[in-house]
Amino acid sequence: MAMATSPHSLLLQNPTPTFLKNPKLPFTAVPMTSTRISPTTTAKPMSIKCAATTTPIQDLRPNPPESQDRVFNFAAGPANLPENVLKKAQSELYNWRGSGMSVMEMSHRGKEFSSIIQKAESDLRTLLNIPQEYSVLFLQGGATTQFAAIPLNLCKPDDKVDYLVTGSWGDKAFKEAQKYSKPKVIWSGKSEKYTKIPAFDALEQTPDAKYLHICANETIHGVEFKTYPTPKNGLLIADMSSNFCSKPVDVSKFGIIYAGAQKNVGPSGVTIVIIRKDLIGNAQEVTPVMLDYKIHDDNNSLYNTPPCYGIYMCGLVFEDLLEQGGLAGIEKKNKKKAELLYNAIDGSNGFYRCPVEKSVRSLMNVPFTLEKSELEAEFIKEAAKEKMVQLKGHRSVGGMRASIYNAMPLAGVEKLVAFMKDFQAKYA
Amino acid sequence: MAMATSPHSLLLQNPTPTFLKNPKLPFTAVPMTSTRISPTTTAKPMSIKCAATTTPIQDLRPNPPESQDRVFNFAAGPANLPENVLKKAQSELYNWRGSGMSVMEMSHRGKEFSSIIQKAESDLRTLLNIPQEYSVLFLQGGATTQFAAIPLNLCKPDDKVDYLVTGSWGDKAFKEAQKYSKPKVIWSGKSEKYTKIPAFDALEQTPDAKYLHICANETIHGVEFKTYPTPKNGLLIADMSSNFCSKPVDVSKFGIIYAGAQKNVGPSGVTIVIIRKDLIGNAQEVTPVMLDYKIHDDNNSLYNTPPCYGIYMCGLVFEDLLEQGGLAGIEKKNKKKAELLYNAIDGSNGFYRCPVEKSVRSLMNVPFTLEKSELEAEFIKEAAKEKMVQLKGHRSVGGMRASIYNAMPLAGVEKLVAFMKDFQAKYA
Repeated sequence: MAMATSPHSLLLQNPTPTFLKNPKLPFTAVPMTSTRISPTTTAKPMSIKCAATTTPIQDLRPNPPESQDRVFNFAAGPANLPENVLKKAQSELYNWRGSGMSVMEMSHRGKEFSSIIQKAESDLRTLLNIPQEYSVLFLQGGATTQFAAIPLNLCKPDDKVDYLVTGSWGDKAFKEAQKYSKPKVIWSGKSEKYTKIPAFDALEQTPDAKYLHICANETIHGVEFKTYPTPKNGLLIADMSSNFCSKPVDVSKFGIIYAGAQKNVGPSGVTIVIIRKDLIGNAQEVTPVMLDYKIHDDNNSLYNTPPCYGIYMCGLVFEDLLEQGGLAGIEKKNKKKAELLYNAIDGSNGFYRCPVEKSVRSLMNVPFTLEKSELEAEFIKEAAKEKMVQLKGHRSVGGMRASIYNAMPLAGVEKLVAFMKDFQAKYA
Repeated sequence: MAMATSPHSLLLQNPTPTFLKNPKLPFTAVPMTSTRISPTTTAKPMSIKCAATTTPIQDLRPNPPESQDRVFNFAAGPANLPENVLKKAQSELYNWRGSGMSVMEMSHRGKEFSSIIQKAESDLRTLLNIPQEYSVLFLQGGATTQFAAIPLNLCKPDDKVDYLVTGSWGDKAFKEAQKYSKPKVIWSGKSEKYTKIPAFDALEQTPDAKYLHICANETIHGVEFKTYPTPKNGLLIADMSSNFCSKPVDVSKFGIIYAGAQKNVGPSGVTIVIIRKDLIGNAQEVTPVMLDYKIHDDNNSLYNTPPCYGIYMCGLVFEDLLEQGGLAGIEKKNKKKAELLYNAIDGSNGFYRCPVEKSVRSLMNVPFTLEKSELEAEFIKEAAKEKMVQLKGHRSVGGMRASIYNAMPLAGVEKLVAFMKDFQAKYA
């Protein structure tokens, strides 16, 4: 019998494993000349006849999702997504569940995408236990668009509103609100480099302020609200972009919660707004239609074409969070990761320092500096060699920042901590 | 020798094809007891020893991208994407080109994403031959946000502007502009059900209008500008959402061209704005920061987090268009497809009717009705059985609509035309 000239040819007989039935694979199945193997017969010697083929071996699958190719990505957003979510998205990118099209190709008004957006909303409602009196909107434009949308929708131009500013993002929200309302910064952490949150009873809230605005987690400065102030007039607004779905939240305390997805729950391009329904419907006349909550609410986020693929990705993340048991369990995991890292910093005898007041340190974003600041570039460089990337601090702050969102595995934090210890041993 | 108890177990010897090295596959490689097969030796009888395993067969690859699973998707947007673009996106979703992360996880300010957005812009400039005096912006918020952004950026509230309304989208743009300027509809096709474009010399343009706005292709009504009017004051603004990159355009004729990506060039969530630089920088005070062209231009679309994955997808589409030889060739293909379909309609003895004036019929969106309108539901249903979907006309218009963007293959139009002939034969 002729022998194989290509080592990539094989002769196999029934039953043929599924993968071998694929005609695209680089070998040809050639019938065997001897008896079928069956579980009950004794082995007989057989000849293996190989058919030559000129088809070169190609790995026709997409790059196998080998975890060893992944880096530990400490970016602040866009950020890590859960590996299983990415694999699922990859597997169904070309043809979503037998529909014959990608999610990216679906009509946003068709039945397939309707099921996707409805499930995403439903799962989010479950995760956050969102009361029925709240609408959930999936919008474009980032949290930065909401900085304008909120005063535009809730205020007349002369209305007073209070901003409690604990970092750069609260400050940006305040500045944008100046165009559409009369905002006041009732407290700012700026003079202390945004390392604190004040005691709430010490706050001097404006008596007739329409709302009190906070940024629940300041991404750049690593300052996170653990409890929330009670607004004098009952309306608390929170930017939760960088800690959304990282822990349970009592939505009923808020008038509006908004979040860019691209920290904890999806890719960039989707902004989620959870808004109490009675607050909808009084937008100022200069409000662009795309910033008018009533338009979006009346149309279930389908007034125009929503960011469909981003919403789909958020939906996969919500499912994954539910499969992990929901936000109470997620919070535990996040606390464990954060504790590991903060302990490493605090236990370094000053080699590493985190300036944030301990009681308000973020579980999501951990800024720190090196006592020997001249070593910071080396730290970044050596960490990157160890496949830990995006550790550089925000350009407005310098130093280092490790963002450890939901999807950062414990292993990533452990590796970082081990690296930090080694680095210290090397350079102390 | 023990025989296999599971038909899914095989014994294979070196060289082991790549896929068999994967430990996740459901069988175990067990060393053969006989001589290696080599290309030069004669076949020797050998025993095949199979190791039993209980791992069930699973197809571990993502669903193979078989074209026969695809439908012909005539949706108006989101819409078809080129198959090779989808396959490429799928293959690199989990790990983009060795970076160890997905595009969805990249910092928008990192070197990987910088290369992506810069290449996308560069390729678009090549495709459309965009002069250097123009900026290219990748924004969120859809064309609908641009309806507000354009008058906000180009006008004072009392400035007059002209709108030439040839369909629903031009009408929406006009209505939004009323908030921020003094717009006038200088011509409307509404009384003739949006089936025409007027002769340009008959237009009564406002002498001191800041700009003249057109919708270059009306998605709902299938009316497309083949040539462009000359604005009295030199500033022509065009919404090209639904024919962007379907044919060459002389960008220098326009002050601004804007387009939602989700017809011809990408998924939803990205809006491309091509704007002459001298028009940037005079936004009204009430302009939300996210609608201010200067903010975006100064920051190369990275003022805040852009819609990264959508921009990446657009980049893949631009590469694909360049590989096809650019927009002149694309236009030829589109003309051929459109001609096939319009001829089928016009040659049906009135069984099918397209109401649009022949000289302005869109190459992208083909609306038509059945003489026997009671058959329309059946038409949709039977077409869907043949895997041609999303043929229903826009809800404001009824009837049928076939959107045949760049990525609709000729085969899809041929199939539709054949189906239409059969359907007519069946029901005439």
